[in-house]
Amino acid sequence: MPFRKVPALTVSRLSVYHRALSTLPDEWIISSEEISDLTGYTAAQIRRDLTYFGQFGTPGRGYIVAELRQRIGHILGIDQDWKVALVGIGHLGSALLAYQGFCERGFNIVAAFDNDITKIGKKWEGIVIEDISRLAESAVEKDIQMGILAVPAKAAREAFDLAVAAGIKAILNFAPVRLTPPEGIQLINVDLAAEMERLSFFLARSRS
Amino acid sequence: MPFRKVPALTVSRLSVYHRALSTLPDEWIISSEEISDLTGYTAAQIRRDLTYFGQFGTPGRGYIVAELRQRIGHILGIDQDWKVALVGIGHLGSALLAYQGFCERGFNIVAAFDNDITKIGKKWEGIVIEDISRLAESAVEKDIQMGILAVPAKAAREAFDLAVAAGIKAILNFAPVRLTPPEGIQLINVDLAAEMERLSFFLARSRS
Repeated sequence: MPFRKVPALTVSRLSVYHRALSTLPDEWIISSEEISDLTGYTAAQIRRDLTYFGQFGTPGRGYIVAELRQRIGHILGIDQDWKVALVGIGHLGSALLAYQGFCERGFNIVAAFDNDITKIGKKWEGIVIEDISRLAESAVEKDIQMGILAVPAKAAREAFDLAVAAGIKAILNFAPVRLTPPEGIQLINVDLAAEMERLSFFLARSRS
Repeated sequence: MPFRKVPALTVSRLSVYHRALSTLPDEWIISSEEISDLTGYTAAQIRRDLTYFGQFGTPGRGYIVAELRQRIGHILGIDQDWKVALVGIGHLGSALLAYQGFCERGFNIVAAFDNDITKIGKKWEGIVIEDISRLAESAVEKDIQMGILAVPAKAAREAFDLAVAAGIKAILNFAPVRLTPPEGIQLINVDLAAEMERLSFFLARSRS
């Protein structure tokens, strides 16, 4: 399959299609119109997204649920499990450790790190919190491929550099700071407080 | 102040600037170059973002930290507290209830709702979980202005409609489904599993 540049939004929508398909029986045949009903995206958008990855289904007949789900799962890389390191076990980090939505999708948090000596060695959700200085060593031992950073802004750059030095190539960052990833490293930023502040900005502005 | 259309990314960056300023003493004077060092955004970007909201600081001298923080806080609407309803107390909802990052920024989750009768009436993080059918009533009683949806995809549209019917005008949706907000409703989608899947897509693709 030739590698075409795939828009980030297409990848995000594939995730949504995959989860919609996961609610249906394997042997069903489904049209893009029916996937549209399930997801809210238009049938044309769904067909366009799938064309990036070759031929799917039978024109005019639809897709076999199990087959489409399996192929999208393979494209997303979720037909395998991934080992994830969580860095920063504060309020958000603890919540993320307890959140089972990652695990359900094959993202297993297998190691947790902090620099607070009162936390190191403690067990949380079945995982012993390690000293951040052990990240590189532990990443090799545990074959860790992904990192989640849930550290304060001022610690984010150091944590990011440590994760990259540990050979982790895909990082989800929750710290409210802009990090510049080197070539070959995939970085995605999620800023929950900023999302809430986009809402309060809207509310404050709409009544002033 | 005339209302110019403000890009969503400008609003997100204002959040980042505000949090960077919150780490500094009130009386300090700071330049856009120094804010750049703290946040990773360029000084030109920072100045451009601020121009949407009038005159800040003294040209060539910089900004007084307390003043800039206060003004950005006012623009973002976080110089006041907001009352938030959380709908859906599954894995993610429970984690969000325990997460104190919202509360620290003035977003107080004051009510929680579910449709699972085994959860209704139970207390979690000091909040009694109410029946989702009580949303409208409770929103009025508790003066709720914002909603967070942490329900499964198949329940998202109904939960969204109930929140809108309850007079909630700003909603953060964690369910992996596309919702179409009516006029005057601000909807922001956050899909954590999809973000992880953008990472695994990258990893799977880069080694195939």
